[in-house]
Amino acid sequence: MVYVGIAGVTGYTGIELLRILHQHPDAEITWMGSHTYAGSPLQNVHPFTFRNDELRELDPEEIAEKCNLLFTALPAGVSYEVAMRVAEAGVKVIDLGADFRFDNPEIYIKWYSKRLEGYENVKRVYGLPEIYRNKIKEAEVVGNPGCYPTGALLAIFPLLKEGLLIEDTVFIDSKSGVSGAGRKAGIEYIYSEVSEGVKAYNVARHRHIPEMEQELSKHAGREVKVVFTPHLIPMTRGIFTTIYVKVSTDLERIHKLYRDFYDKEPFVHVLSPGMFPSTKWVLGSNHVFIGMTYESRSNTLILMSVIDNLVKGAAGQAVQNMNIMFGLPESRGLEMNPLYP
Amino acid sequence: MVYVGIAGVTGYTGIELLRILHQHPDAEITWMGSHTYAGSPLQNVHPFTFRNDELRELDPEEIAEKCNLLFTALPAGVSYEVAMRVAEAGVKVIDLGADFRFDNPEIYIKWYSKRLEGYENVKRVYGLPEIYRNKIKEAEVVGNPGCYPTGALLAIFPLLKEGLLIEDTVFIDSKSGVSGAGRKAGIEYIYSEVSEGVKAYNVARHRHIPEMEQELSKHAGREVKVVFTPHLIPMTRGIFTTIYVKVSTDLERIHKLYRDFYDKEPFVHVLSPGMFPSTKWVLGSNHVFIGMTYESRSNTLILMSVIDNLVKGAAGQAVQNMNIMFGLPESRGLEMNPLYP
Amino acid sequence: MVYVGIAGVTGYTGIELLRILHQHPDAEITWMGSHTYAGSPLQNVHPFTFRNDELRELDPEEIAEKCNLLFTALPAGVSYEVAMRVAEAGVKVIDLGADFRFDNPEIYIKWYSKRLEGYENVKRVYGLPEIYRNKIKEAEVVGNPGCYPTGALLAIFPLLKEGLLIEDTVFIDSKSGVSGAGRKAGIEYIYSEVSEGVKAYNVARHRHIPEMEQELSKHAGREVKVVFTPHLIPMTRGIFTTIYVKVSTDLERIHKLYRDFYDKEPFVHVLSPGMFPSTKWVLGSNHVFIGMTYESRSNTLILMSVIDNLVKGAAGQAVQNMNIMFGLPESRGLEMNPLYP
Amino acid sequence: MVYVGIAGVTGYTGIELLRILHQHPDAEITWMGSHTYAGSPLQNVHPFTFRNDELRELDPEEIAEKCNLLFTALPAGVSYEVAMRVAEAGVKVIDLGADFRFDNPEIYIKWYSKRLEGYENVKRVYGLPEIYRNKIKEAEVVGNPGCYPTGALLAIFPLLKEGLLIEDTVFIDSKSGVSGAGRKAGIEYIYSEVSEGVKAYNVARHRHIPEMEQELSKHAGREVKVVFTPHLIPMTRGIFTTIYVKVSTDLERIHKLYRDFYDKEPFVHVLSPGMFPSTKWVLGSNHVFIGMTYESRSNTLILMSVIDNLVKGAAGQAVQNMNIMFGLPESRGLEMNPLYP
Repeated sequence: MVYVGIAGVTGYTGIELLRILHQHPDAEITWMGSHTYAGSPLQNVHPFTFRNDELRELDPEEIAEKCNLLFTALPAGVSYEVAMRVAEAGVKVIDLGADFRFDNPEIYIKWYSKRLEGYENVKRVYGLPEIYRNKIKEAEVVGNPGCYPTGALLAIFPLLKEGLLIEDTVFIDSKSGVSGAGRKAGIEYIYSEVSEGVKAYNVARHRHIPEMEQELSKHAGREVKVVFTPHLIPMTRGIFTTIYVKVSTDLERIHKLYRDFYDKEPFVHVLSPGMFPSTKWVLGSNHVFIGMTYESRSNTLILMSVIDNLVKGAAGQAVQNMNIMFGLPESRGLEMNPLYP
Repeated sequence: MVYVGIAGVTGYTGIELLRILHQHPDAEITWMGSHTYAGSPLQNVHPFTFRNDELRELDPEEIAEKCNLLFTALPAGVSYEVAMRVAEAGVKVIDLGADFRFDNPEIYIKWYSKRLEGYENVKRVYGLPEIYRNKIKEAEVVGNPGCYPTGALLAIFPLLKEGLLIEDTVFIDSKSGVSGAGRKAGIEYIYSEVSEGVKAYNVARHRHIPEMEQELSKHAGREVKVVFTPHLIPMTRGIFTTIYVKVSTDLERIHKLYRDFYDKEPFVHVLSPGMFPSTKWVLGSNHVFIGMTYESRSNTLILMSVIDNLVKGAAGQAVQNMNIMFGLPESRGLEMNPLYP
Repeated sequence: MVYVGIAGVTGYTGIELLRILHQHPDAEITWMGSHTYAGSPLQNVHPFTFRNDELRELDPEEIAEKCNLLFTALPAGVSYEVAMRVAEAGVKVIDLGADFRFDNPEIYIKWYSKRLEGYENVKRVYGLPEIYRNKIKEAEVVGNPGCYPTGALLAIFPLLKEGLLIEDTVFIDSKSGVSGAGRKAGIEYIYSEVSEGVKAYNVARHRHIPEMEQELSKHAGREVKVVFTPHLIPMTRGIFTTIYVKVSTDLERIHKLYRDFYDKEPFVHVLSPGMFPSTKWVLGSNHVFIGMTYESRSNTLILMSVIDNLVKGAAGQAVQNMNIMFGLPESRGLEMNPLYP
Repeated sequence: MVYVGIAGVTGYTGIELLRILHQHPDAEITWMGSHTYAGSPLQNVHPFTFRNDELRELDPEEIAEKCNLLFTALPAGVSYEVAMRVAEAGVKVIDLGADFRFDNPEIYIKWYSKRLEGYENVKRVYGLPEIYRNKIKEAEVVGNPGCYPTGALLAIFPLLKEGLLIEDTVFIDSKSGVSGAGRKAGIEYIYSEVSEGVKAYNVARHRHIPEMEQELSKHAGREVKVVFTPHLIPMTRGIFTTIYVKVSTDLERIHKLYRDFYDKEPFVHVLSPGMFPSTKWVLGSNHVFIGMTYESRSNTLILMSVIDNLVKGAAGQAVQNMNIMFGLPESRGLEMNPLYP
């Protein structure tokens, strides 16, 4: 049995962890903490949950006493501090923020303007199970991937393996639901500002770019540059990512390569060429669908992926990582079909 | 005074023409026809309109008697037939479909599987006012541009003028509201299937591709290839287009070029670099906003444009063309601010 | 183990049964049939499901061979025929339509314009577990309640028990998501017609009225008249029902009565006076929240309830009935928290 | 020419005044002020507007110099102060808040917890043009009605005239878009919290209740009690109000009464019995549609009305009042058809 703590349970990622773990046969939530609402019972914040624990202060000793795994869903830097202290006490950690995602701490400093003391001593891994399954088994701390990188990397990885990229620039155009911005007030997120509108934001300077470039370059064996445009669209959950890359081969071969690459994966599904996915197919589920087509006049491969940003893009992937870390079947507690329609 | 007929008034484009022309000081709607509802009063179909004309059969003689301008918003081929007959009788025509958009009728045959008899004899023009203003003045028939091409072409044109494109492939990624699919039943368009979902469709084979390539290649003076992915998102109106092109210069110069190019245009607005538009800014208005940024490591210019697909992408642009054809100030009847929020 | 068949699996109710039963530890889906898509594999219709059975014709013998329980989610009258034949063969049936909801078959004839042959011989029950739990245990066929009646009846029942209604008219005003209309094309249901709009429909003549009146009158011991206005609002799932009744007592007593009435119920939650529910609290879950307040100047009790129309209003309640019929714990397979946000 | 000032131009009501007045042939906006953004150019806040005035402090002298009419769209109490000072200087005022809506200032104190000094000296009127047209002509200050009261009162007034109400309680159930809450941050208004959800709020204690009761009681000649439940639904604009009243006559007579009552009104449209309106019919327009049906077993008349809360429920009605105050045709500048779809 995994005894689980959730630090930051009232945010969208935290409450999604609760939803998933509530039905996990091998996990028991033994601690819930909150930065903002410590001292309140959970139902004061979210009357619909079917737990009503008193939310706790982020006390590492208490956590270490009650849990053998802690999920941290806290602001950048805050997660790091809590995680380091409980990890010292032998508690495994899965952080849903960016604090443990980078191999090179200088990158973190550059993009997050914070220094992480003692980072080099952590036995950490970038928690994309389809790529790092074996390292995740051994890790003490998992840096759970960002939502955009999850959708983009899974769509591109098979190409890298075979060295099929002609050029070193990848165009990534993502369309995201608003829940990615979290449960926080802000005029730009209120319903009247979001409905009936699409907008781009942080174009070519979103914090998920270095994360994508780290992983793509590492696996390509050379520098891959990402041109990334995230868009906010009027829906709550889901990310649709469209990717344009120049490749040196035909669609049939690429499709076969993808099918083989993801053949044994429980959560990644490769569609037949010319068939395109919808984010509705993954609402509330941990699955990923990848579609593709080819524009032969310009040697352009168009890749598409869909995920639920709060599940495969956050809490679901975190539970998948938990399963791996604790020797459980990887899809345990994650078998749910999407909520449709 | 322009005496206007609208053939196909009950569709979304037709009813938008009615909304706009209802307030146009120099136009009077003297005829309304419908393919599907001929014989019914308009309010039987749309109880909210403040006209209740009996909808007429598509009789060219009657139209010629009542109108000096006809807008056709009918299925492909049907528009052509009606348009040709009323044009013969001296009535000017603005077609909101694809029948008069192509310079080369073979392209139409290839993409629409129909032959248009007598096409070479029509004095027609591709009705993008910002480019063809002078030809529109003289035209007998205007092929009003498609919604996606309008947003994409206006964002790219200034580059062509200066020969700034390094490569001959342009990546165009559009996010469209559902009204572009028209007022027709279809399981894929019902609310439960569209809300909380994004999907791509007709990737790299949408009928608006040849239209974009015709105009881009003509103005670039060489073949430009368009890689185009349209996406359907959960909103009713609006198109956000994101474009990735490789260019050989810096952002400052490009921005100045765009400002100069559109300096005198009443409907096209160029944003400062790093400022990105939203489709909410143009809901119900004929305006276009263009944003841009530059990713210097890969020489990529990212262009963004927003339009209301039913206004600048259809009925508003058609009225703009009407104004030009009849010697009226170009923005007459089109001064409305967007409906916000 | 319950061996389950689903007749009509591709509709919204059918696919929701699949979602729920997919995770039910004591049920196995052994047969899937479809009126419209027989012969196709399920993923041809719904590529996101993680089953791909060939959809079968509605053959009672085959069903009887493979199942000990059949869910019917078919058009009125069609369900009846299939249900009667498999019931004869000893298969239990839960019908998600109206065919088995009425005590008096004349009511069905009046509202559905169909006669049901042999109705009086069926051992049936109105499948509202909170009221008819004991009869459901013994039933051969369960008429699963309509979505509107479920939300309304649960909110009103406790009053009847104590005879607290002063008047015999109850005003019921419901706001429903669009999925209640099912997975069918229809201009009035397309996204562009539904978004940014509210409308009422079938005011005072909706087919769920006789169902509500049957149950209210039976438990009140006298005729109760329902004035019912259903509204369609721009969302996919969920029903919010607001009820106005005149009562002869104070809020404190009523609240206590409700708390006691639903004290042992796993799915019905009574909120403190002045606290009002949201349909977001039950998205994808089988739960019901009931809120209330009192307007003392006019002796009006205002009751509110929220359900997910496809779960407690259809498939979830059907599984709850299955659990009762087969001696399983009533909330087995239905413990899921809502999908939030 | 009316020289207009708008105090509070950046809020939803203010920007809607701008949209409407921008096209009004007899009004010119000569002053724009803002509580929050004074000193900024308007486009810094709203880049889509086609004016870019520097927003001014709320200086009564400056206003009096530039305007002969001021619209105030400011917080309760703040409007009052500004309004009183410019009114003294001979500027007419239309207040879009509640400060001038009540005949009895004690009611205001009770519901808004503020005392308005010198209230009894103001020549004010409740600005519902269909009822108070003549008084509005003479008024110095108009208290523009609330959005909910506008929709409800117009639907009920004709009944009062003929004394048709049997009982003195009226049940009013409203469904409102979110823009009614204004342009302000707040977790409960962010997209992820509002989409796919309906909730009730301020049940039986909304501040629009005393406003409705004042007008209904005055015209009924006796106390009328309002039981009012406002609901927030996932849309931006629009209010659908459903009203339940007991009446002593038949539908045909009532319908004729309504038709006659609103016969000459440019903005109020009475639908045939059994035909029900949609808020989509009034999106962006100043019109109102009223539908009705009758439940004869319980003598219940069900009335329905739809308005755009920001137009007929706020800015449009304010412009209608302006037209009346300045002797202009009442629908001048308000002829727009709705934005559909």
